[in-house]
Amino acid sequence: MTTTELELAPARAATLSTGTTMKALVYHGPGRRAWEEKPRPAIQDPSDAIVRITTSTICGTDLHILKGDLPAVTDGRILGHEGIGVVEQVGAGVSEFHVGDKVIISCISACLKCDFCKRGMYSHCRHGGWILGYTIDGTQAEYVRIPHADGSLYHLPAGADEEAMVMLSDILPTGFECGVLNGQVKPGDTVAIVGAGPVGLAVLLTAQFYSPAAIFMIDLDDNRLAVAKKLGATNLINSADGHAAHHVLDLTEGAGVDVAIEAVGVPATFDICQAIVAAGGHIANVGVHGKPVGLHLEKLWDRNIAITTRLVDTVTTPMLLKVVRSGKLQPSQLVTHRFALNDVMKAYDTFGNAAKEGALKVVLTSGTPG
Amino acid sequence: MTTTELELAPARAATLSTGTTMKALVYHGPGRRAWEEKPRPAIQDPSDAIVRITTSTICGTDLHILKGDLPAVTDGRILGHEGIGVVEQVGAGVSEFHVGDKVIISCISACLKCDFCKRGMYSHCRHGGWILGYTIDGTQAEYVRIPHADGSLYHLPAGADEEAMVMLSDILPTGFECGVLNGQVKPGDTVAIVGAGPVGLAVLLTAQFYSPAAIFMIDLDDNRLAVAKKLGATNLINSADGHAAHHVLDLTEGAGVDVAIEAVGVPATFDICQAIVAAGGHIANVGVHGKPVGLHLEKLWDRNIAITTRLVDTVTTPMLLKVVRSGKLQPSQLVTHRFALNDVMKAYDTFGNAAKEGALKVVLTSGTPG
Amino acid sequence: MTTTELELAPARAATLSTGTTMKALVYHGPGRRAWEEKPRPAIQDPSDAIVRITTSTICGTDLHILKGDLPAVTDGRILGHEGIGVVEQVGAGVSEFHVGDKVIISCISACLKCDFCKRGMYSHCRHGGWILGYTIDGTQAEYVRIPHADGSLYHLPAGADEEAMVMLSDILPTGFECGVLNGQVKPGDTVAIVGAGPVGLAVLLTAQFYSPAAIFMIDLDDNRLAVAKKLGATNLINSADGHAAHHVLDLTEGAGVDVAIEAVGVPATFDICQAIVAAGGHIANVGVHGKPVGLHLEKLWDRNIAITTRLVDTVTTPMLLKVVRSGKLQPSQLVTHRFALNDVMKAYDTFGNAAKEGALKVVLTSGTPG
Amino acid sequence: MTTTELELAPARAATLSTGTTMKALVYHGPGRRAWEEKPRPAIQDPSDAIVRITTSTICGTDLHILKGDLPAVTDGRILGHEGIGVVEQVGAGVSEFHVGDKVIISCISACLKCDFCKRGMYSHCRHGGWILGYTIDGTQAEYVRIPHADGSLYHLPAGADEEAMVMLSDILPTGFECGVLNGQVKPGDTVAIVGAGPVGLAVLLTAQFYSPAAIFMIDLDDNRLAVAKKLGATNLINSADGHAAHHVLDLTEGAGVDVAIEAVGVPATFDICQAIVAAGGHIANVGVHGKPVGLHLEKLWDRNIAITTRLVDTVTTPMLLKVVRSGKLQPSQLVTHRFALNDVMKAYDTFGNAAKEGALKVVLTSGTPG
Repeated sequence: MTTTELELAPARAATLSTGTTMKALVYHGPGRRAWEEKPRPAIQDPSDAIVRITTSTICGTDLHILKGDLPAVTDGRILGHEGIGVVEQVGAGVSEFHVGDKVIISCISACLKCDFCKRGMYSHCRHGGWILGYTIDGTQAEYVRIPHADGSLYHLPAGADEEAMVMLSDILPTGFECGVLNGQVKPGDTVAIVGAGPVGLAVLLTAQFYSPAAIFMIDLDDNRLAVAKKLGATNLINSADGHAAHHVLDLTEGAGVDVAIEAVGVPATFDICQAIVAAGGHIANVGVHGKPVGLHLEKLWDRNIAITTRLVDTVTTPMLLKVVRSGKLQPSQLVTHRFALNDVMKAYDTFGNAAKEGALKVVLTSGTPG
Repeated sequence: MTTTELELAPARAATLSTGTTMKALVYHGPGRRAWEEKPRPAIQDPSDAIVRITTSTICGTDLHILKGDLPAVTDGRILGHEGIGVVEQVGAGVSEFHVGDKVIISCISACLKCDFCKRGMYSHCRHGGWILGYTIDGTQAEYVRIPHADGSLYHLPAGADEEAMVMLSDILPTGFECGVLNGQVKPGDTVAIVGAGPVGLAVLLTAQFYSPAAIFMIDLDDNRLAVAKKLGATNLINSADGHAAHHVLDLTEGAGVDVAIEAVGVPATFDICQAIVAAGGHIANVGVHGKPVGLHLEKLWDRNIAITTRLVDTVTTPMLLKVVRSGKLQPSQLVTHRFALNDVMKAYDTFGNAAKEGALKVVLTSGTPG
Repeated sequence: MTTTELELAPARAATLSTGTTMKALVYHGPGRRAWEEKPRPAIQDPSDAIVRITTSTICGTDLHILKGDLPAVTDGRILGHEGIGVVEQVGAGVSEFHVGDKVIISCISACLKCDFCKRGMYSHCRHGGWILGYTIDGTQAEYVRIPHADGSLYHLPAGADEEAMVMLSDILPTGFECGVLNGQVKPGDTVAIVGAGPVGLAVLLTAQFYSPAAIFMIDLDDNRLAVAKKLGATNLINSADGHAAHHVLDLTEGAGVDVAIEAVGVPATFDICQAIVAAGGHIANVGVHGKPVGLHLEKLWDRNIAITTRLVDTVTTPMLLKVVRSGKLQPSQLVTHRFALNDVMKAYDTFGNAAKEGALKVVLTSGTPG
Repeated sequence: MTTTELELAPARAATLSTGTTMKALVYHGPGRRAWEEKPRPAIQDPSDAIVRITTSTICGTDLHILKGDLPAVTDGRILGHEGIGVVEQVGAGVSEFHVGDKVIISCISACLKCDFCKRGMYSHCRHGGWILGYTIDGTQAEYVRIPHADGSLYHLPAGADEEAMVMLSDILPTGFECGVLNGQVKPGDTVAIVGAGPVGLAVLLTAQFYSPAAIFMIDLDDNRLAVAKKLGATNLINSADGHAAHHVLDLTEGAGVDVAIEAVGVPATFDICQAIVAAGGHIANVGVHGKPVGLHLEKLWDRNIAITTRLVDTVTTPMLLKVVRSGKLQPSQLVTHRFALNDVMKAYDTFGNAAKEGALKVVLTSGTPG
């Protein structure tokens, strides 16, 4: 995020907009965002629901959008694909949710009916997938329209902590599905996670579901590594010296790790994964990549490894919900900053300077109780 | 294979050597091979067996060795890692095989005791793996020493066709494990195999165990494609025009294939696989690569694909043996040429000019019945 | 089926009923069925579709209903849960099907939205499951209402053979999911199928997707065994002598079978399965049981076996459709008799005397082209 | 164990026998056991090792043998199939262990070479399986001969706690493989364990590798339930009132449990499992059964459940070793009593009155350090 952003609409008091308009965080081209007045969304299709947002948060992807990295996002788009709220209205085809239900919004919209959804690949839903805050308006707003509501919302358990539960919108299923499940983490495994940002830390939290014997956390930022230690990493490796792979091989007596999880999205971190994966091991890519990487098939062709990629499907959200409810997973540990929803412009400033601010997840809450 | 090979020892009559020597195909540095006198192998370890070869064959890897591509192979090495024979002698620790047993020799030697063997990764056996005709003397000889005999030999069923069964030494498990199993071929799938050499054709034969709906065979050689048609390929694509990926996408209405299997080992063929794999699909690498390839993570990161590599473990050999015995698999279809073992020098000439000779598998048989 | 059935409404010419009524096969209590006038179904819920039946068939379960074995079926119920037809009308929430589409009707209705559907257990759908011709009116009629149409219908491929495709309504997915998938049939396996009725034969056909080395077919009826031979069984065992298990053990040198599939539903046939399953093997129950069976845990506790039960989920229907289209599966081989839909009363007579008539699947077709 | 046991040889001082004899716990028919002089074992086969026992323990199965329940155990047999010790001698075919190595002895002897071993079913090894203290002399002695040493021993990590590690001989892999793996425990699952004896508690400990949301422990003994609470059970159910199934259904709002694990071995406890398993769930049998049970297929045929049986294979021992080393599993929590090896007669008295003595695992240690 650059410093040239023009704040078109200064934040106002946390009063809920009335009538047919609402406040929303709107993208106006690279480096330009505003908290401004927009029309309230309305039902467009029988599968739609309208949700009033009570809790939202900002994702690293939102920063990418603001940098202009995702040209599919056009001027005027409301950002945000994470949130919790209250159902205000439902279309005729919605059967699982009713007005007044408190819901977790999934970052992935799933029609449940297409071939991809039937295979559990909601990410590639022919009528949905990742669309919120990307090709349609998103959740950093007072209201949001959720298409395919029956496949895209989850009931918030009574009495649940919204701050913890909003992590189920994206980073927990992302870390778990793309990193832990694809990496096939097993009891006794040695796991390395490259990148200790919010998603890497979500990998760390959910990898522990399967009781690996060791989890190495690799990052450039000692503060983030310290958080990783608190959240269960057994070994910390600051990769600033350019020798992360060497350190991992030392720690494993040259064998490498059973599972290497890439949670950054650049060639250098993918290279570390290639260098440290043990014979028979897995490289699970979680990061969003903008460039090709060199794959060392001349070294890896006979190493019996698997490399996986995945856009989160959010098919594990019901299971993750159970684990969060049981207390075995405490995702609110990832929250470092809290803002009122109508202070979202400030929240972006903080999140956009994550290293300096020590920011991981920044939670936004509306003044109006769910 | 080059034309500069010096044939140090011209082929002789098919009489079995007597006494303490034998005839063997010996590597003498890049481009140099000979059928010459060597000492007969002897038991060195309690797990060893000595096998008299009745049937052998030549692998594409043997040609790579002759080109000097595998510097671990040193002057004086007897080549060959495929074969069938009769047990002549066993060490004190061998319990599953006895003198006189007819056996299939696996290209992979497995101690069965190390951590990798216990995980079913015989390819990475700490005391074995691929060693025959590579770091120890191999099977293109009258006799061979087989270390870890209990894990490296299989009983030849009574009355079995040796020509068919010798395909179990390497190419059938290689095609099946590295291509079909790693590619997770399923009933109804669309599969593409890039490379219609012997191993690619072994993939083709064994892929049909799982009843895919379509199998596209891609190669530069129309003769090999014609063989593929006969062996079950549903669509043939000659990639000479540089548009193989385009043709596959056309045939699949833009979706790509569920499983893309690379059976060549060069960047161009791996690129085809990347270009044609469907969302949610698998790329199974079978080819031996000498160079890095470019991996298009900028396109693939959100496609939910898996890329696998594998050196064959031969753990499926017992199962493949059952299927060959049942008649559901006819691997002798891959045999195009037959030579006496002591004509192995000519056999290499033929196999080394595979395109011109229309050669796939070249079988060598000793004059002495097993 | 008894001979005391009162045929309340004699079959008429194959003219499509007009207006608001239709003809349908109606259950009137144990032993009583009629082809009679009923009101045409109408949309009741946004997820409903109305389908005009062009092809239907009769299931063994329909005979159980007529015997009074399923008391949940009440007087006045239209029977039938298999069929192919043309969409006549859709509710507002139906998005995947349109008026005029030719469709295969699944015996299982799936809302796709509940927890069971999301786990792929459509059989236990909280709003559907097996309801057609059971708790709501079914497909042996000129029209049928299909709830949750988007999860319960499949597009009939252009030019497909309806007679083959109607086997996808129930017996193919039942045999495949409950028998083959749950039994984990693998290449090279030895499989025994107990019961050569239509569902047992569907197991036989679909087991061959995975290239088992041997398939033993066990039944009391030599005619059915002869059909099994034609459809791929490698060994036939008539169990009339009470020694079926003994014969299987002989054929397997005492080892037993890797997979034993029960496709009858009585204790005696389940006992055969217990007696013949090899250590490490699977017993897959397909039959509908009315009584407890004795489980010999005193013999089986240390045999490392798995016993599975399943009501078909029809989650594999899209895959089966691909395999039928590819020509690798020819389910019309199961059709022995053909009737006009308005001769359904005669069709029941034939199917109810299956042994005498040599009947397997009896297909019903409307006179009106789809 | 009865009070009529004749103690043929009173315990002596803890001096290691010298020369060619040793002390051992010997079975002399139902109800009769003695700690007496026996010849020291010697190498009989190249695959053998002789191990001097430093730590052993008693299993519930030993009590069954003493009751005469296992007639294959004959007069004169040395009991015991669990232990840790020091390698004193190895046969010519043993390659992974050397004199002086400290080792964990597996209750299952695995040749690693037969078809069952190659499939990972060591329990059914054609040359081994469970033989120690059963068909050959066992580990409750100063020395023991271990056949197939390379497949039946594991290196004790330097500095490891023998008391914890001896649980790897049997109960940890038994609980984990037969209960947790076969039951397919997953994150978020609801699990019920019927039987809080040592093996049931081993299930409890290892089930937590997979982060289930709830674990219900069912037993008649409140002391054992209290231990279960300490070890991670979330709910305790005393089944003395005959309504255990009812309580489980109440706790799960009628749904039942995802995984029901039987760890007792009588029809009543298996019945509880049948009554509480949810649709789509698993019943994993761990208990040793002496009688058939009634299987309610009339209720279960359409419930999509799996029932598994298994004799432990100990294939997961290397993985369990890693987890114990990592500190994530603390099996010494199961140890309630400690005796000198030459007080094994007293140890049996205590373990034979487990309920009264509050005994779980009773550890025996030789006076001589390993």
